[in-house]
Amino acid sequence: MCFTSLKNLFLVMAKFVRIFNKKILYHHSGFRTSFNNISTAPKIKSVSEVLKSKHVGQVKVQGWVEAIRKMKKLIFVDIQDGSDLKKLQLTLDKDAAPPDLSYGSSVSAIGSVTINQDGKAELAVEEIKVLGTCPPVSEGYPLAARQPYNSNHLRQYLSLRLRAPPFRALLRVRHRAHSLLHDILDAQDFTLVHTPLLTANDCEGAGEVFRVQPDCEQLITEMRSADFKDKSAEEVFFGRKAFLTVSGQLHLEAAARAMNRVYSFGPIFRAENSKSRLHLAEFYMLEAEMAFVDGIENVTKMIERIMKRLIRGLLDSCSEDILLYRKLTNRPTEPDWLEHLDQMVVQSFAVISYADALQMLTEATDEKFKSRPQDGTALSKEHELYLVKRNGNLPLFVVEWPADLKPFYARPCRGLGLEAKVEAVDLLCPIVGEVCGGSVREDDLCRLAAKLSDAELSQKLDWYLDLRRYGNVTTAGFGAGFERILQMVLGTTNIKDAIPFPRWPHNCQL
Amino acid sequence: MCFTSLKNLFLVMAKFVRIFNKKILYHHSGFRTSFNNISTAPKIKSVSEVLKSKHVGQVKVQGWVEAIRKMKKLIFVDIQDGSDLKKLQLTLDKDAAPPDLSYGSSVSAIGSVTINQDGKAELAVEEIKVLGTCPPVSEGYPLAARQPYNSNHLRQYLSLRLRAPPFRALLRVRHRAHSLLHDILDAQDFTLVHTPLLTANDCEGAGEVFRVQPDCEQLITEMRSADFKDKSAEEVFFGRKAFLTVSGQLHLEAAARAMNRVYSFGPIFRAENSKSRLHLAEFYMLEAEMAFVDGIENVTKMIERIMKRLIRGLLDSCSEDILLYRKLTNRPTEPDWLEHLDQMVVQSFAVISYADALQMLTEATDEKFKSRPQDGTALSKEHELYLVKRNGNLPLFVVEWPADLKPFYARPCRGLGLEAKVEAVDLLCPIVGEVCGGSVREDDLCRLAAKLSDAELSQKLDWYLDLRRYGNVTTAGFGAGFERILQMVLGTTNIKDAIPFPRWPHNCQL
Repeated sequence: MCFTSLKNLFLVMAKFVRIFNKKILYHHSGFRTSFNNISTAPKIKSVSEVLKSKHVGQVKVQGWVEAIRKMKKLIFVDIQDGSDLKKLQLTLDKDAAPPDLSYGSSVSAIGSVTINQDGKAELAVEEIKVLGTCPPVSEGYPLAARQPYNSNHLRQYLSLRLRAPPFRALLRVRHRAHSLLHDILDAQDFTLVHTPLLTANDCEGAGEVFRVQPDCEQLITEMRSADFKDKSAEEVFFGRKAFLTVSGQLHLEAAARAMNRVYSFGPIFRAENSKSRLHLAEFYMLEAEMAFVDGIENVTKMIERIMKRLIRGLLDSCSEDILLYRKLTNRPTEPDWLEHLDQMVVQSFAVISYADALQMLTEATDEKFKSRPQDGTALSKEHELYLVKRNGNLPLFVVEWPADLKPFYARPCRGLGLEAKVEAVDLLCPIVGEVCGGSVREDDLCRLAAKLSDAELSQKLDWYLDLRRYGNVTTAGFGAGFERILQMVLGTTNIKDAIPFPRWPHNCQL
Repeated sequence: MCFTSLKNLFLVMAKFVRIFNKKILYHHSGFRTSFNNISTAPKIKSVSEVLKSKHVGQVKVQGWVEAIRKMKKLIFVDIQDGSDLKKLQLTLDKDAAPPDLSYGSSVSAIGSVTINQDGKAELAVEEIKVLGTCPPVSEGYPLAARQPYNSNHLRQYLSLRLRAPPFRALLRVRHRAHSLLHDILDAQDFTLVHTPLLTANDCEGAGEVFRVQPDCEQLITEMRSADFKDKSAEEVFFGRKAFLTVSGQLHLEAAARAMNRVYSFGPIFRAENSKSRLHLAEFYMLEAEMAFVDGIENVTKMIERIMKRLIRGLLDSCSEDILLYRKLTNRPTEPDWLEHLDQMVVQSFAVISYADALQMLTEATDEKFKSRPQDGTALSKEHELYLVKRNGNLPLFVVEWPADLKPFYARPCRGLGLEAKVEAVDLLCPIVGEVCGGSVREDDLCRLAAKLSDAELSQKLDWYLDLRRYGNVTTAGFGAGFERILQMVLGTTNIKDAIPFPRWPHNCQL
């Protein structure tokens, strides 16, 4: 299609349009007659809308039965529809209850909103219909009314567990956290860049990547055209091996040299044989990159700002959902929990050096560490959590890392005694340890090229070196695990309960 | 970590914290002395901030040189930093210009903001520094000053093309479109659900999926434990073959039965050997699902509402960027373009049946179609675009599709003469044809199970049948291609120019 002269085109088409109009079934401003009866029915309202009602009146609600209480003449039915963490109480005559009205069934009810003496809205039912029945636990449904939820049990039924109230709460918290993160970054002048998930790059997570290739033999055969005769099945689609990304950082560095502040938010993959409470094969990461920065404190400052605004935002909008979620771990209404989160927002995040962290760990002779810390080695989870505990269970940054423990692109520290260190940072948090890692990126073309000593690697990453050849600036950035942040906010030890459809070794349900 | 009694824990830790505090390098409220000199430097401002300045004063700006004009005594240097589509003019004495100041180089400049007589802010430079030089085109940099951008040329340099002004505009439009979509869906009570990208499901796109497996032989060997001895290399990680998703819809159907209105936004993959202007191996989709609906008009209504709010939002916030992007296709400042988009918001979207669409195509004997339309076959791109043209180049819905042309989960139409049709819809738009497809989902367990006649398939999708077994409701939804929407808004024929890092057959750069 081309639109060289739209006005002429419009004129020519006027004739067409007249014929076309006769074929139109309806516009939404004027439905076909058969749809008109919709408007005579009572207004459909969500549970949340009814609960917030200040006025009485006839409405229709739809939802799932969460509880049934039978009195002498009346039945109270609590329903919810995901729009609110609170349930709506329906009141109906015992005679009017359909026989298949049971826990888990979906219903539609017409009735009058009434406001209780305590100001709570409920529905006096005039008409109720069971839309979809729900057999009891004995017949296979894994959820029962008022049963404590066992998260291991629920994990066996990923297609149904979202209906358990703690998981409905999780979805609301994730939704809000996601939208807060985008708003916070937008307000800080970051531009979203969708970095590719399919990449030719495997250098960062050598050995930890998933490989991607078409599943269809016929397609592979077809594509093995003259040019690609010598390519293996795994190379033929893209002309080279392709992997699922372990980080969008290198691509963000390219974008940062166009837009200054950029970020990505999306799934990241790791082929690790780990079933630990902190690892998934597919998880979400926020990654951000800033141009024209100099010094790791630009990174720690930005991470602290984003984390605090996120936690504050969740406390303001999702406190009840956070406590509801904690039913999953049998820690339901612990007001201290919210106070603890509040402290994270109020207190400054501490910044300590790797050397000092190591000294503290070495001096902690009372602690029964499974492994003693050693200079030049990574901090283990127990070490990270000890440091957090020592900081009053509040988040802290560790900076000035040994170069060997950080990726090739971290820039060496400047300063006396810091020659073998790089400008990298880890943010350590309660429950999960490392939530966030970042660095100032090596901006020197020669030093960077020297580090990519492997010829194949330096050819593959020539585009990355190009970024330093043309209009170079120093950039710095970080990546934060979204599920780990949620784990910390929700206080759950298992990352599989912080994502709707977890994937881990031997587990790819649905 | 456990927090049974946080208050006690806090008391015990107070001692620890005192020791810990001695190790803290700095908090952001009180930097180490070495960082203090930052505050004495002039305030760093973005190009956008300076351009919006109403007051004069000393500032520091950083950006890339977009143009240099030499006068007798003065040099005018236009810089930009991605924060604004307009450039900021720097004015400096010829003598003060560094010798390596060239197009594409990155600079930092300190100077005074001055306001021109026409109210435009510019910067009188006192000090300028080239941070990163940029060799000219003859030495390999693919961008030149004031050259028309050829999109085929730029596509060879994905790591650098984002610096071309039209691609900076693309990133801003994508960012805004993304945030508008989330806001529009949030306002319509949709909850975001991150559906998995790794899935055991290949049924929807049979033959078009990518397979995923660890790239590391050692890991595969390790994981072939006793239980998985008989598994192939491609099955051993998850215990079964895993694929990259072609749609999150089935998972959204599970979530819709927990939350009512749900959506996902993220990358989707197709292993198709197509280098067409409308296909990518990795692209972004918005998918939405609504519970308790009855009738395809719920779907068309929602799609129309979302599309119109999105286009209106982009016209309000990104008109200049849309026109700037069109420089890429050499259609720079065509005011008709924005009028055309405005018409899409103002006019009702037409809804016609597949049967009527087919009749119109058959009667269009003047049109030189490559293939004549036949009843029961899919509409080709030329057919789709013809229908759009007939509708005044405005979007239109086609409904009442032959069952064979739509997936197994589309629900049969109710009504006389519609027995072999399903309640599905395609939204056809200018430039791209199909942008969006949706349907009312089959809600009848028996009919659905009958369609999954293949025993293996019905076992694999038993979880999907479960959704109909427990608390069933009718759901309906749609999927919209994000890049195709952007193509329509930006008026670009090539989808590879609507995404920052395109992937297509034989192309996985970076």
